[in-house]
Amino acid sequence: MNEGRVLVRETSEEELLAAIFPLLPTGAATLVGPGDDSAVVSAPDGRFVVSTDVLVERRHFRPEWSTGYDVGWRAAMQNLADIAAMGARPTSLVVSLVIPGHLPVAWVTGLARGLAAACAPSGAAVVGGDLSSGDDVVVAVTVHGDLGGREPVLRSGAQVSDVVAHAGRRGWSAAGLALLDHDLGPLDQELVDAYLRPEPPLAAGPAAAGSGATAMLDLSDGLLRDAGRLARASGVAVDLDLGAFRGDLDRLAVAASAVRVADGPLSATGPGPADLGAQAALARDWVLTGGEDHGLLATFPAGTSLPEPFRAVGRVVARPTSVPGAGGAADPAPAAPAVTVDGEAPRAHGVGWDHFRG
Amino acid sequence: MNEGRVLVRETSEEELLAAIFPLLPTGAATLVGPGDDSAVVSAPDGRFVVSTDVLVERRHFRPEWSTGYDVGWRAAMQNLADIAAMGARPTSLVVSLVIPGHLPVAWVTGLARGLAAACAPSGAAVVGGDLSSGDDVVVAVTVHGDLGGREPVLRSGAQVSDVVAHAGRRGWSAAGLALLDHDLGPLDQELVDAYLRPEPPLAAGPAAAGSGATAMLDLSDGLLRDAGRLARASGVAVDLDLGAFRGDLDRLAVAASAVRVADGPLSATGPGPADLGAQAALARDWVLTGGEDHGLLATFPAGTSLPEPFRAVGRVVARPTSVPGAGGAADPAPAAPAVTVDGEAPRAHGVGWDHFRG
Repeated sequence: MNEGRVLVRETSEEELLAAIFPLLPTGAATLVGPGDDSAVVSAPDGRFVVSTDVLVERRHFRPEWSTGYDVGWRAAMQNLADIAAMGARPTSLVVSLVIPGHLPVAWVTGLARGLAAACAPSGAAVVGGDLSSGDDVVVAVTVHGDLGGREPVLRSGAQVSDVVAHAGRRGWSAAGLALLDHDLGPLDQELVDAYLRPEPPLAAGPAAAGSGATAMLDLSDGLLRDAGRLARASGVAVDLDLGAFRGDLDRLAVAASAVRVADGPLSATGPGPADLGAQAALARDWVLTGGEDHGLLATFPAGTSLPEPFRAVGRVVARPTSVPGAGGAADPAPAAPAVTVDGEAPRAHGVGWDHFRG
Repeated sequence: MNEGRVLVRETSEEELLAAIFPLLPTGAATLVGPGDDSAVVSAPDGRFVVSTDVLVERRHFRPEWSTGYDVGWRAAMQNLADIAAMGARPTSLVVSLVIPGHLPVAWVTGLARGLAAACAPSGAAVVGGDLSSGDDVVVAVTVHGDLGGREPVLRSGAQVSDVVAHAGRRGWSAAGLALLDHDLGPLDQELVDAYLRPEPPLAAGPAAAGSGATAMLDLSDGLLRDAGRLARASGVAVDLDLGAFRGDLDRLAVAASAVRVADGPLSATGPGPADLGAQAALARDWVLTGGEDHGLLATFPAGTSLPEPFRAVGRVVARPTSVPGAGGAADPAPAAPAVTVDGEAPRAHGVGWDHFRG
């Protein structure tokens, strides 16, 4: 099949599967691979870790920006990050794929190549899947992992006085998306690539578990929102040190400036102090609320030698009691924040992503 | 939340999850349930079985016919059947759900109830999921199972002289769909229900494995097509005995007659011999090519006492060599059929479902 020109609707399901199968990654944990009613996967310690995540065209990616390869890469990585966040190593994936008939077959084989490239470093295999037609592309991936005999690292184990540590990039994906959205992609291809093909620090998850992490999660919806989830699950609060993200803030400064200029208007004589403040605020927003970098946030007992590439970014503090309202029972107290930045309630413009309220 | 009136777009993702979570089935194999980055599931014999299947609105179900409950039930059952077809018992499911904002919240909670009802008899739990907005409903389920220390029953193990046996209904789902399609649903609600909420013989899978089944698969795309898959995977041929399906053929006769009449025209004096022949042919087509009953087709060594509810429906024969073409190399031989019915190549009107060629 000359897949460069053929559309999905011009092929049969069996021909399409025959084109995809040889591209899928294989792995050592696969006991029975694709082609039967089910696959069989090894679970050496008598347990397996499982998570599922879905990507939907025009909700999670725009076809004019993301190739099939990019979508396959991202679908795999956002799932693999959920396994790493438990302290586990990925073993296997299954993929349900909904595709419209007007899609080129090359887009679909590109997706298979992107899945394979994302899985290659960890040795995870695609062991099964399902294919359907539909108006929009939907990629639903389920991923499985092996804890290697260790206990899973949950969100709920953080203890007061623990160090909060982060591994991975912060805000790069959000900055890359903003550049694309402002037609400024060529200005910083590295940030655009961070959005299109995120690179979560997958090996850091098992390393954190091995170093005694008390809690961990994957940052998919933004630092403030996900840190709040960890804090609430653990019954504690988290105070973040914005200065710990200086490297990311500096890295994003030029992109923030360009996006700010594109949003206009500036003073006629060039950017003034107000504009510079707005640029810094934008970079700060990307770092605090940008999603989809899929870095890992973990807590460790104070004094732990942090495994690479974790860096201390804050500390676990006691959950403050609610501030008493001035007007008695009829005037309920505002909830105390589960996350503070440099000791204060954060004033970011967004607090992460909600699918239904946007 | 008064879910009867609220639409998905009027709620937040967290509120929606809070409405769904209490409805999901729980199970004994769940070590860490929903709410963390991943779930953790027990795999007592050091392996797990996994399969995934997707349902897409207007491709696999029509919202005017299927309730949320029906879709949840069907999404679970078609996946559970893939686990049974390996000879395994289901332990856990994860569900990726894409829903449009105009859907009532009650539809979504109905789907959760349908999942739970379908999982109840086998004790399988929903241990995780993902939720996204999208224009069409998409339900992607991944299911896991436990082999209980036995080897998986593959499609490829059938041996010449084995008995071919079937468990479950044949053609009921196709007949129910045809009734709905002809606005004849009230004529036979049991057949309509068989389409809307299939009842695969899940316990028959492990029973077949325990009785020494040499090969097995789930009949999701029709008897002829799926029997052909088993035959090709095993390097054999299958001869089916249509008379073994007499019970199903009789059960479908009235529905076939009604659909045939609705398709008209009939002779002015009522159905004549040609019409009766057409009705019988339609029932035969439903039995041979109708999909989605999710019965199990298995092969057993001759003389095996078949476990309930399996019935012998044919036998495994040697794959015939291709019929030599009359014209030499330029006139390739037609492929010998992998499946025959009463010793002859089947002449059904359809041979099962292809998503992209319809």
